[in-house]
Amino acid sequence: MAYQAFTEQDAIKRVRELGLIGQEEATAEEIGDGNLNLVFRIQAGKERLILKQALPYAKVVGESWPLSLERAWIEQLALKEFAKYATPFVPRVFHASHEEAYTVMEDLSHLQIVRTGLLAGETYPLLAEHVGSYLARTLFFTSDFALGPVGKKQVARDYYNPDLCDITEKLIFTDPFYDAETNNIESGLETDVQQLWQDEKLKREVAKLETLFITKGEALLHGDLHTGSIFASAGETKIIDPEFAFYGPFGFDVGQFIAHLCFAAYPNYAELRETRVKDIDTFWLTFASTFTALWEREAVEPFRTVPGLVDDVLSTILQDALGFAGCELIRRTIGLAPVADLEQIEDAATRLERKRHALRLGTVLIKRRGECKTFTDLRNFDVTEELSR
Amino acid sequence: MAYQAFTEQDAIKRVRELGLIGQEEATAEEIGDGNLNLVFRIQAGKERLILKQALPYAKVVGESWPLSLERAWIEQLALKEFAKYATPFVPRVFHASHEEAYTVMEDLSHLQIVRTGLLAGETYPLLAEHVGSYLARTLFFTSDFALGPVGKKQVARDYYNPDLCDITEKLIFTDPFYDAETNNIESGLETDVQQLWQDEKLKREVAKLETLFITKGEALLHGDLHTGSIFASAGETKIIDPEFAFYGPFGFDVGQFIAHLCFAAYPNYAELRETRVKDIDTFWLTFASTFTALWEREAVEPFRTVPGLVDDVLSTILQDALGFAGCELIRRTIGLAPVADLEQIEDAATRLERKRHALRLGTVLIKRRGECKTFTDLRNFDVTEELSR
Repeated sequence: MAYQAFTEQDAIKRVRELGLIGQEEATAEEIGDGNLNLVFRIQAGKERLILKQALPYAKVVGESWPLSLERAWIEQLALKEFAKYATPFVPRVFHASHEEAYTVMEDLSHLQIVRTGLLAGETYPLLAEHVGSYLARTLFFTSDFALGPVGKKQVARDYYNPDLCDITEKLIFTDPFYDAETNNIESGLETDVQQLWQDEKLKREVAKLETLFITKGEALLHGDLHTGSIFASAGETKIIDPEFAFYGPFGFDVGQFIAHLCFAAYPNYAELRETRVKDIDTFWLTFASTFTALWEREAVEPFRTVPGLVDDVLSTILQDALGFAGCELIRRTIGLAPVADLEQIEDAATRLERKRHALRLGTVLIKRRGECKTFTDLRNFDVTEELSR
Repeated sequence: MAYQAFTEQDAIKRVRELGLIGQEEATAEEIGDGNLNLVFRIQAGKERLILKQALPYAKVVGESWPLSLERAWIEQLALKEFAKYATPFVPRVFHASHEEAYTVMEDLSHLQIVRTGLLAGETYPLLAEHVGSYLARTLFFTSDFALGPVGKKQVARDYYNPDLCDITEKLIFTDPFYDAETNNIESGLETDVQQLWQDEKLKREVAKLETLFITKGEALLHGDLHTGSIFASAGETKIIDPEFAFYGPFGFDVGQFIAHLCFAAYPNYAELRETRVKDIDTFWLTFASTFTALWEREAVEPFRTVPGLVDDVLSTILQDALGFAGCELIRRTIGLAPVADLEQIEDAATRLERKRHALRLGTVLIKRRGECKTFTDLRNFDVTEELSR
């Protein structure tokens, strides 16, 4: 059937036709934020399902931005690919339609979006470990190291996703570094932002990171791994929404998650800072040890046995990740898509102070990522010190 | 029509049907080396044409290696793509058939294969400059810098070439570094080769270069740019045979050409060394200045104006290129596809000495490429010094 945006009744009709629910009475509720997708929660007896359908445009801050529906197909392909390697952390997909650009999948309403939960004071004791394991497994198993170059190229072909890569490129690596219309710069932050825009060394390093992002096709990335793309409870973690999936650098997802753990400290910095630093530690250690174990057990490349090589690979991943984390910290502070972690701080002076901190931390991570060969090097960074190096 | 390997009469019939020659008498001669392709030179009156047809296997040293015919299509696509940006250096394509895996193109028999010419004492005063210009233009114009990420991804899709990438990976980055069956190790060289195989730092760096080769999709590469893929005269240069074309790192073609200029010095090292070093200088300077000029005039990325960025980009290209050159020097000395520049040295002691030199030079380039920020740094390398660094 040709594409048209579903109503709630259409959504019910479709899952009924597919035999995913029976003839019993059913209800559907549209729960998406409406920016890129329709999201219907369907309930029929004890059965609960999500039907997610892509919209052919992105409604963002007063403009209409046409977007390929192909991303819906890529998203469900990626969900199924990731589920092969990290089953417990990926929602189940029951059906997908290429033409109508929808996917029917597991309902996760017993869990909570992590950003929302953290802001409400929830704790997720297993989150860092789960995401570390998820990323090590999905990145390793979709890379040349596991698939070999021929197998990897076959998988990579399915993830031709230029529209969404272009959004990332513009919003993360370009717009925040000059006076772009899309930016959201809070009053009081102008001087800091001017300083950023005049920092030629910073911009050169950001350009290098952008080049890595668009040219380094190492593994199938989630592509948008922030705390709003994760559902969790105390014991469970599910990573959703990989519509930005494409073959890119190992460090990108890793860096985005690190940046959003940093953001999660800002609402109550004195109290939360240590917890979030511990989360980042746990996340990286889980990632690195899982990746190393997979390398030793599963890598197909003849060079996998060269001593020290996996440590070099991990050092590069870490350095790239810190650079990408820095870009994410800056763009979510002054770019198009601000984070609630900062925006919901009520006291204006505190909010400005935290935003300044995010900009400084981002700058340091970008400029000095080369000094971090191991994660403990990162601990030695004092963001209050001179940034002119 | 379904694929079948052509006879000479088939080749004539096809170009006649295409209207590329008239009804006059025509002759065809098969002049390929028969390893991967049939190459017919067709003559009809004053008209001369080449019809090149892919074979579905690679005959290499006693084994039959099945190969996708798709590479013929990729080759003619690449010829046409490169011709857009570097017209004088690319043979004209008149017709191509996807199904029958052949291409009809300009005959270049007024020129000579550069490796053969150099071995016979020819000089090509414009070669280094021409190849520098060709590479700067083809690499720049097929990169994100010129096409933007969306346009680049569209072009890159056509160059899905896993079979041929796999050959490169095995023959350049893997087999020469362990006791593979495909190697050709001349008697007398065993100790040197053993030393190479025990050099863990070297193997780690080769593994990193291999990873760059398979993951860094910066530009459309020729993929096999040695002196046997270039036709030239004193005034003209044509680069043929891009059947290994794929999206890879800027430095790969650059490095292969540098390696083969090094090889070209070996037949008469005392006399030729300085000429070849000057060629490498000219080649790199032309490449770098052309690339910089294109960057300033034609780059579409907003970050192109960041001061110093193009110099950083060129430093990285140079370092990658030197590493790839090192790998090529080693594999053509002890791997599956030896070069006549070394093999045709008649005196056994001299031949062994030059092969040892090639292995040492390759090792130094791979291990110490990081020290070369500019091309003059390379001049300071003394390959006789301690290699243990």
